[in-house]
Amino acid sequence: MKVYLAGPEVFLSKAVEVQKEKAALARAAGFTPLVPGDLEIPPAPTKHERGLAIYAVDEGMMLASEMIIANLTPFRGISADVGTVFELGFMCGRGKHVYAYTNTSRSYYERILNDHYQGNAALRPDGRMAGSDGLSIEDFDMADNLMLDGGILRREGVLIKREVPEADRLTDLEAFKQCLAIAARRHLR
Amino acid sequence: MKVYLAGPEVFLSKAVEVQKEKAALARAAGFTPLVPGDLEIPPAPTKHERGLAIYAVDEGMMLASEMIIANLTPFRGISADVGTVFELGFMCGRGKHVYAYTNTSRSYYERILNDHYQGNAALRPDGRMAGSDGLSIEDFDMADNLMLDGGILRREGVLIKREVPEADRLTDLEAFKQCLAIAARRHLR
Repeated sequence: MKVYLAGPEVFLSKAVEVQKEKAALARAAGFTPLVPGDLEIPPAPTKHERGLAIYAVDEGMMLASEMIIANLTPFRGISADVGTVFELGFMCGRGKHVYAYTNTSRSYYERILNDHYQGNAALRPDGRMAGSDGLSIEDFDMADNLMLDGGILRREGVLIKREVPEADRLTDLEAFKQCLAIAARRHLR
Repeated sequence: MKVYLAGPEVFLSKAVEVQKEKAALARAAGFTPLVPGDLEIPPAPTKHERGLAIYAVDEGMMLASEMIIANLTPFRGISADVGTVFELGFMCGRGKHVYAYTNTSRSYYERILNDHYQGNAALRPDGRMAGSDGLSIEDFDMADNLMLDGGILRREGVLIKREVPEADRLTDLEAFKQCLAIAARRHLR
């Protein structure tokens, strides 16, 4: 069974190393991993066309996969990497098996409130909690925006939350291994 | 033709007002708008279950729509709202018509470099530009992460970029109207 390995690892200086490790773990669990950046990207005359060519390769890998494991660990802010989120949505839309993990156990509510607004929030006249800019703060005991948690759980997917120290947050693979183990029990043999 | 209106408007204190205005513009252009939050959400015993119930209603509206117009204006950071990004990915995955807009004309590269890293970036040994934390900065002349622009353009969707002053960035509807006008010419009559 082919699995698409989505996550912001691609931005790490040791991207290739981490992606190879994830692919090896997926193979050891019995899956065939498809990893963004794995295939040769055809040359393109402009940056924009190169970006589109990478997209085309990634979409092809998603269409060929029966399953996604998405790393939703917060990236450059309070939410998951938007590229990974697009891929999660795409795979939910295609009706594929969805697995995800995040290397923080702090709720989205807590991250918006404390990390984004530094606690500067108050009830709005409409009864919703809002930040200093007036934007409401969603409070659903979820790992990220409700569309992410909701999309995963609605199709009986798995979302693993695990607290990892900041220095290892983008590279720790324990929750990824847990996704693989559950998926192997469910879908293999 | 039913169109799903996605965007972070739902977080505004005047969410209802802006969503009603968008819906009225969509109807005036000849479409039937479906708007998150439009339908009564069934009562739920916990916050988490309420979040899942909202997701279920939103997914139902997406499945019922033939088209999405997504507001990808940066939200609480350098990228689009992740809920909207999930919806964009979902609709791309379903093969629906995709339209999107962002109320900034500054590239994603420029926003990562200057807004996120305040210009503290340098070439990495692998030849990629990276921020002070070592994470690479993607540079594809795109509005956001390449999966967003790529997903839209690969299926001949439309992505309107327009520079709007910060105070009006989350509420300005000029680019939304442009999406409606192009979509009406393409799909109606």
